[in-house]
Amino acid sequence: MISGPADLAAKSTSELATVANDIRDFLIRKVSRTGGHLGPNLGAVELTIALHRVFHSPHDVLLFDTGHQAYVHKILTGRESDFDSLRQAGGLSGYPSRSESEHDVIENSHASTALSYADGWAKAFALQQSTRRVVAVIGDGALTGGMAWEALNNIGSAPDRPVVIVLNDNGRSYAPTIGGIASHLAVLRYEGDRNIFEDLGLAYIGPVDGHDITDLEHALRKAVRLNRPVVVHCLTRKGKGYAPAEEDEADRLHAVGPVGAAKKRSWTSVFAEEITAIGAEREDIVCITAAMAEPAGLAGFASRFPDRMFDVGIAEQHAVTSAAGLAMAGMHPVVAIYSTFLNRAVDQLLMDVALHRQPVTFVLDRAGITGPDGPSHHGMWDSSILPVVPGLRLASPRDPARLRELLREAVDVNDGPTVVRYPKATASDDIPAVRRTGHCDVLLECPGADVLLVAVGPLASACLQAADELRAQGVPVIVVDPRWIAPIDPCLLKLAGAHRLVVAVEDTTTPGALGGRIAQALAANGSDTCAATFALPPRFLPHASRSEILRAHGLDAAGITTTVLKRLEALS
Amino acid sequence: MISGPADLAAKSTSELATVANDIRDFLIRKVSRTGGHLGPNLGAVELTIALHRVFHSPHDVLLFDTGHQAYVHKILTGRESDFDSLRQAGGLSGYPSRSESEHDVIENSHASTALSYADGWAKAFALQQSTRRVVAVIGDGALTGGMAWEALNNIGSAPDRPVVIVLNDNGRSYAPTIGGIASHLAVLRYEGDRNIFEDLGLAYIGPVDGHDITDLEHALRKAVRLNRPVVVHCLTRKGKGYAPAEEDEADRLHAVGPVGAAKKRSWTSVFAEEITAIGAEREDIVCITAAMAEPAGLAGFASRFPDRMFDVGIAEQHAVTSAAGLAMAGMHPVVAIYSTFLNRAVDQLLMDVALHRQPVTFVLDRAGITGPDGPSHHGMWDSSILPVVPGLRLASPRDPARLRELLREAVDVNDGPTVVRYPKATASDDIPAVRRTGHCDVLLECPGADVLLVAVGPLASACLQAADELRAQGVPVIVVDPRWIAPIDPCLLKLAGAHRLVVAVEDTTTPGALGGRIAQALAANGSDTCAATFALPPRFLPHASRSEILRAHGLDAAGITTTVLKRLEALS
Repeated sequence: MISGPADLAAKSTSELATVANDIRDFLIRKVSRTGGHLGPNLGAVELTIALHRVFHSPHDVLLFDTGHQAYVHKILTGRESDFDSLRQAGGLSGYPSRSESEHDVIENSHASTALSYADGWAKAFALQQSTRRVVAVIGDGALTGGMAWEALNNIGSAPDRPVVIVLNDNGRSYAPTIGGIASHLAVLRYEGDRNIFEDLGLAYIGPVDGHDITDLEHALRKAVRLNRPVVVHCLTRKGKGYAPAEEDEADRLHAVGPVGAAKKRSWTSVFAEEITAIGAEREDIVCITAAMAEPAGLAGFASRFPDRMFDVGIAEQHAVTSAAGLAMAGMHPVVAIYSTFLNRAVDQLLMDVALHRQPVTFVLDRAGITGPDGPSHHGMWDSSILPVVPGLRLASPRDPARLRELLREAVDVNDGPTVVRYPKATASDDIPAVRRTGHCDVLLECPGADVLLVAVGPLASACLQAADELRAQGVPVIVVDPRWIAPIDPCLLKLAGAHRLVVAVEDTTTPGALGGRIAQALAANGSDTCAATFALPPRFLPHASRSEILRAHGLDAAGITTTVLKRLEALS
Repeated sequence: MISGPADLAAKSTSELATVANDIRDFLIRKVSRTGGHLGPNLGAVELTIALHRVFHSPHDVLLFDTGHQAYVHKILTGRESDFDSLRQAGGLSGYPSRSESEHDVIENSHASTALSYADGWAKAFALQQSTRRVVAVIGDGALTGGMAWEALNNIGSAPDRPVVIVLNDNGRSYAPTIGGIASHLAVLRYEGDRNIFEDLGLAYIGPVDGHDITDLEHALRKAVRLNRPVVVHCLTRKGKGYAPAEEDEADRLHAVGPVGAAKKRSWTSVFAEEITAIGAEREDIVCITAAMAEPAGLAGFASRFPDRMFDVGIAEQHAVTSAAGLAMAGMHPVVAIYSTFLNRAVDQLLMDVALHRQPVTFVLDRAGITGPDGPSHHGMWDSSILPVVPGLRLASPRDPARLRELLREAVDVNDGPTVVRYPKATASDDIPAVRRTGHCDVLLECPGADVLLVAVGPLASACLQAADELRAQGVPVIVVDPRWIAPIDPCLLKLAGAHRLVVAVEDTTTPGALGGRIAQALAANGSDTCAATFALPPRFLPHASRSEILRAHGLDAAGITTTVLKRLEALS
């Protein structure tokens, strides 16, 4: 329909309305088929059209916070025909992507960053005496993140550095936006008098009907004329124009799966059941989410124990440190969070929880390869960073029974942080152990074998398949599941030291992975065992399905078999 | 003078004024002698007295943000006699410390956390139907940190969970407070009408003269009666009552060294010189500080190039992501930050800088053991966490010449983040290299030696002394300085593989340290070299002098010698 933003310039108001309708129909048709973020994009159709009429991307810098609402921007910048491949291997990214288009500037899908980027661009343009404009589109949900405040505080202090902040206020992030800022914005929607942005030194325009292109353009042009930091407050409706989305109170069809995708039992749902059961047994258990109660498996707990459920907004730092406070006061907090988002609170975990030896349990969903959301959603860093935290215990369950068991072990710890990690995937069937030694489960016994496979978490079944294949090829191996991957169990080290080759198979990046930590410990003991890590390479990985990515990096049964054989050959 | 808070209860107004004067005299006398935080405590005398009269610690929970202003609190809770040992090994901590007193609740000296802790305590007390009060004392400087915003947003949303926030507004953090919030507080000081806290749902009392105990008590009692979230805005003067502090425009004698301590050339001052020289050569160099321009060595750059210097407040997340924005726009940002505070922005470094392959240089001051500030100031985590970031290059200079050289190499990189780390210490004399191989400097050559010492950064001189001692005992060793410690230089690996024992000597915590990464790489290559790390143990370390701590953990010449001999014995 539109080959580039310039096509919009000559259109009349009624033609623009037709474009908006066409885009909405296109999104509903395409995204229902491929899966992806639907609700946020339906809410941003008119706003994105207006932005591309008023500003001249890429000369003007258009920054989309979070980025899952940039589908309309993709359509308007010549990528309509790529939507059949949305979020698939080699296909269109679900977020802005610099390799796709010169119109995409930032491709980080973590929330609340765009205003900080904008401040950086504005500072550079001031030094360069450039007249290029900087525009950042941010949702009201992302304003609950502390980074956004830090940025507003800086942007507001420099009246001579223009930044246009477009506040896309639909009253929600994934879930309804929480906190004082949400109430304040609600008041502004109707009264529009005193406001927090002016308090911080920014000009304020609004509220504006975010589905009226003419009004939007008028407000944006006014913002440009002000030539200073300004917030344009746009009211939109998530899921706008698609009844099933508009009527969905849970999340306005925030993200949908591909049509016909079967609902299988996920790791998340196992956690959801068990934490609710534990909550019924223990009144000291409280749960914390950073605006993701339902996708992190806390909806059941929340409806059963509403008083013990805290949604803090997209505020991971506050989630972690308020958990430390709750723990100091005698509660046992369970912070359920996506693995990749815990990186927002590394300092708080280290200092506020671990230094104070507070019993807080972190449940990391989306740990390891996540899939179609791409590099900023893969939870491939936690196993490398978390072992650095003194006193922290990190568990990786191989199956639903172990998830339940390890979660219970974690909430029974009373002198420091515990972490349980699992992927966004269908949970496997339970995998029985032959015997337990220390914290470890031996899954396949083979006296006299040269090779020990250390199967980390959900890679256990691939390891067992590889073991069968290796045995068929005359290479007997033992398979052990360490259950707790940090700190290293002395029984695991003892077992490792008794083999010629030890291979840890892990759904994480390589530096700091368990295999390397085993190698380090063995070397320190003067052992001549060779310990290796089969894990993800130390780089950012693009989107594709979880199984495609694991296979591509040799983390399926065939890959494990091949690599073990190669390693053995190198050793002999 | 005061054995506990109860002693304050019966005192008259004039007696309290005497107590305040006595405390001030005591602080000036003691802290000038031992060194420590002076200005912040002089400003908090009356406030702390009033807090202990109105609230009943430890029944009521008194939380000091940052904590370096808690000296008065220590005096009032029976620790006056311990001040001669302030910040010394085994002596009084410079921050609240739970092992010292039941009146100390949080001992993390990173800013902006107290409101999040307070929210946690308040949530727990609500569940427990406790009437205990929660009081958090926070400076205006700490309000520039995003965590504080996240907490205000949460606290403000729950009128039924009382929290008393005492805003100790002296217009400064280390440096004058920056940004929109600072301007807003300045308006409130004189006009006191519309304000940001009420926008967020909190009640507001103030402004109050923070040096008038009667007024303070009146305001605090009113806050208690409100029985809801409330901010008590207290105006104080940093350094109050001590002319040399009140008149010091730079930092109001924020922290002073012990009397008679000689000024030696620090690593910071070498950086300060070199970055100013580089700034004169390259117009694209911009510097960023999170409220610490002077202590991070940027004062000279700032006065020479004020347009290219950005103080973002205590806002590490924004510092890093706005740097990414500046880099995208063609500048080369240098973020000068204490090592321990970079943990506040791990996600931003990973996603916003590294994923986008932006050339941002991080200069980590206070890397490794810092000394008297204790566990939350030791910069002992960076070398373990940073190698996980794809594409990041990490340098550790051994002497001033290498600091200058590596800083220049770092700012010449144009495709990803670079980091240069150095300690808070006197810079050593330059240590010449025998030869360079790859990125590595061989410092001591010894053909045929069994042992390779990998000397990381400022531990080079201890390694060279140990090498002399080992040679005297008949154990010849080679000493190499890798200069860049991540990623591992292939030349370093080749050199390592040619020796029987490789020992990396490092001023960092053990997991993820260079020695372990070398062991992992050698194991992956099937090498039979034994590689070990001599580093700090994986736990939090209390305050003492840098040399005391290094010696206690075997990181001096004698310790290195002994441990190498032990390792060799174990290998034979």
